[in-house]
Amino acid sequence: MKFLITGFEPFGRESINPAWEAVSQLKSEYMGHLVVVEEIPVVFGASIDRLIERIELHQPDVVLCIGQAGGRATLSVERVAININDARMPDNKGNAPIDEPIEQSGPDAYFTNLPIKAIVKTLGEYHIPTSISNSAGTYVCNHLMYGLLHFIHTMKPNIRGGFIHVPYAPSQVVDRPGTAFMPVDMMLEGLERMIEVIAVTDSDIKKADHAIH
Amino acid sequence: MKFLITGFEPFGRESINPAWEAVSQLKSEYMGHLVVVEEIPVVFGASIDRLIERIELHQPDVVLCIGQAGGRATLSVERVAININDARMPDNKGNAPIDEPIEQSGPDAYFTNLPIKAIVKTLGEYHIPTSISNSAGTYVCNHLMYGLLHFIHTMKPNIRGGFIHVPYAPSQVVDRPGTAFMPVDMMLEGLERMIEVIAVTDSDIKKADHAIH
Amino acid sequence: MKFLITGFEPFGRESINPAWEAVSQLKSEYMGHLVVVEEIPVVFGASIDRLIERIELHQPDVVLCIGQAGGRATLSVERVAININDARMPDNKGNAPIDEPIEQSGPDAYFTNLPIKAIVKTLGEYHIPTSISNSAGTYVCNHLMYGLLHFIHTMKPNIRGGFIHVPYAPSQVVDRPGTAFMPVDMMLEGLERMIEVIAVTDSDIKKADHAIH
Amino acid sequence: MKFLITGFEPFGRESINPAWEAVSQLKSEYMGHLVVVEEIPVVFGASIDRLIERIELHQPDVVLCIGQAGGRATLSVERVAININDARMPDNKGNAPIDEPIEQSGPDAYFTNLPIKAIVKTLGEYHIPTSISNSAGTYVCNHLMYGLLHFIHTMKPNIRGGFIHVPYAPSQVVDRPGTAFMPVDMMLEGLERMIEVIAVTDSDIKKADHAIH
Repeated sequence: MKFLITGFEPFGRESINPAWEAVSQLKSEYMGHLVVVEEIPVVFGASIDRLIERIELHQPDVVLCIGQAGGRATLSVERVAININDARMPDNKGNAPIDEPIEQSGPDAYFTNLPIKAIVKTLGEYHIPTSISNSAGTYVCNHLMYGLLHFIHTMKPNIRGGFIHVPYAPSQVVDRPGTAFMPVDMMLEGLERMIEVIAVTDSDIKKADHAIH
Repeated sequence: MKFLITGFEPFGRESINPAWEAVSQLKSEYMGHLVVVEEIPVVFGASIDRLIERIELHQPDVVLCIGQAGGRATLSVERVAININDARMPDNKGNAPIDEPIEQSGPDAYFTNLPIKAIVKTLGEYHIPTSISNSAGTYVCNHLMYGLLHFIHTMKPNIRGGFIHVPYAPSQVVDRPGTAFMPVDMMLEGLERMIEVIAVTDSDIKKADHAIH
Repeated sequence: MKFLITGFEPFGRESINPAWEAVSQLKSEYMGHLVVVEEIPVVFGASIDRLIERIELHQPDVVLCIGQAGGRATLSVERVAININDARMPDNKGNAPIDEPIEQSGPDAYFTNLPIKAIVKTLGEYHIPTSISNSAGTYVCNHLMYGLLHFIHTMKPNIRGGFIHVPYAPSQVVDRPGTAFMPVDMMLEGLERMIEVIAVTDSDIKKADHAIH
Repeated sequence: MKFLITGFEPFGRESINPAWEAVSQLKSEYMGHLVVVEEIPVVFGASIDRLIERIELHQPDVVLCIGQAGGRATLSVERVAININDARMPDNKGNAPIDEPIEQSGPDAYFTNLPIKAIVKTLGEYHIPTSISNSAGTYVCNHLMYGLLHFIHTMKPNIRGGFIHVPYAPSQVVDRPGTAFMPVDMMLEGLERMIEVIAVTDSDIKKADHAIH
């Protein structure tokens, strides 16, 4: 099985993106499964273009896109991407679309086809704090996830794909005490465990989520 | 114009539901617009059935469903409902579905057709803390919102509808210090201002959201 | 019985201080007890000087100083003031002392002699979210509280005095969604109830606090 | 120089205490400085007795007591201990004192004599999230810190001592997503860096704290 795993470049006022810090340390093979990694620009439009180009190049079975969610305390496995761009701040090329659809004629949302509950369960057993998230936001992270799932649904139905948000790295919070973080090594181990879970899980398990409303 | 505004009954360990506390105090008319209110059970399935029955009865132009989101600090105007039931705790009839679709052949999600940015802008001008939310969760609140929007899309395309989450009332947090709350009077005023905004707004304004990832 | 109740002027980037917004609306008499109010500058040194001058002028039996604690969700009744100035940002005159004692030869801290548990209990009964706080910080609020208690201990042992932190007002958080707030009317009612409790309570009740570590 | 470093046993519903998990992994020597470790019961009274007994036994130059502060996101270096026991829940022997002094004739509080700002600065340089805390609470942690500082002030003025709170370990939060945590390895490294800082710092540096009110 072949995995394409992407990490975003830094954005906002950050000098690093913990997503790429972790992704770039992945090995090229785990338990016989190949892994290729790619860095993705934090730019509306261009991020999807780059991702699709690399999917065409690498022909993976699974695509995992990784991004930073500053303030969150867990690896959060996104359940759904919604068809909207709504940027609070400009992307790395200065674009800040407000309430515009990602795909003019696309559906309002796509669920991931990753085994999200199995991922949460397994990583928890390894003491890596992980949870389901029901919103990937409306910035470039959600944008890329929607673009990936739209491409899968319309062009490559055999690919499995989804998006994982990671917390800040420790170096990003030393001057913001009280803000949650996760060491990059723990993110990396989390990604390695995800590869193993996804490789062996055909259909997701049933397990209650923690969130309510 | 006629508004149907619903509030959920209490659930979990709560003896009140601030949503219904506020909704039940609405007058029957604001600026010439009629308002009818209904209480809705916190039950998967039965909540949608009750709502649709009351829509058929009252024939409203706008349907607003209101629910409690304990821990949130604002009136949160939900942008989207997703096609999944994933209950962390049983509903008021003991049902706790895990990862089941609400509508077997429905789309993954529906966006509300309310002018959500205009609502946030106007209520902010009245100093009522309000924000957009990109997730109504996966419990009965999201369930009802999805059921409403599915009914609108498939049966009543001229109705406008959506869901608003309210914080805890003060009485619910006096023994949980640190938990956000909003006085019921402020929720009530917020609902009154929403009626006014919705009545005069044909298409939503463009305004950046506060959230990111 | 005569109460002197003070509220700070605005500081930081705020155009109002909810403490003074509430204090300035107090009546001059509650249940036969006189109330005088004073606004206090957010300035190290000058705040204490102003307070002592007004105590000498008004000769109160009880002194309550009120300040803003942005981000907190309750009226927080401070238990203790510590003998240190440690300013993260300059006060309204540009002073930013780091780790300097307030009183060179003063003790490390003073406990308030207000009936703090009785206050929390009574306000809770009126559904006004209130809690004990074990830290008034190290900025001008703690500074004024320490100055008050030092003056009481060394010069006026019959006066009862303490400090109450209030949350942001709603107008301060409409552009910061997710931040806790309290309507100024609720703060005002809280202060009125405190006057009543303090007037009738000689020694504090015993009641467990909510905080731990 | 000789360090006595203590960690509390588990309390509440926890099966581990991350403080002792980290402390028990310390080596017996760092850069020529000796380190002895001891586990302390989470019991009012007995915790102080045990600590003093071990101080008399080991005759250390520096005493660091470490405890768990569930929910905090940083290593928090406590600035001050206050003369009060106020237990929200029973200790490990069932004691739950409410608003009782720790030392009947002791002062209201003691500041630590550790170089707290130098510790925060150095650990930040190593990307270990660390901050000053102005409250150690009113439970057994504050109790032990006060007991230590009272003993130092009255009996052993040459000893330097203080208290450090650590976050939950990852294993404690996997079923509480959203709760901050820190890997035990990072806590351990933090303690090792503290030993180095304390060993070389005679008087603390001046550096603004992050907290306000």
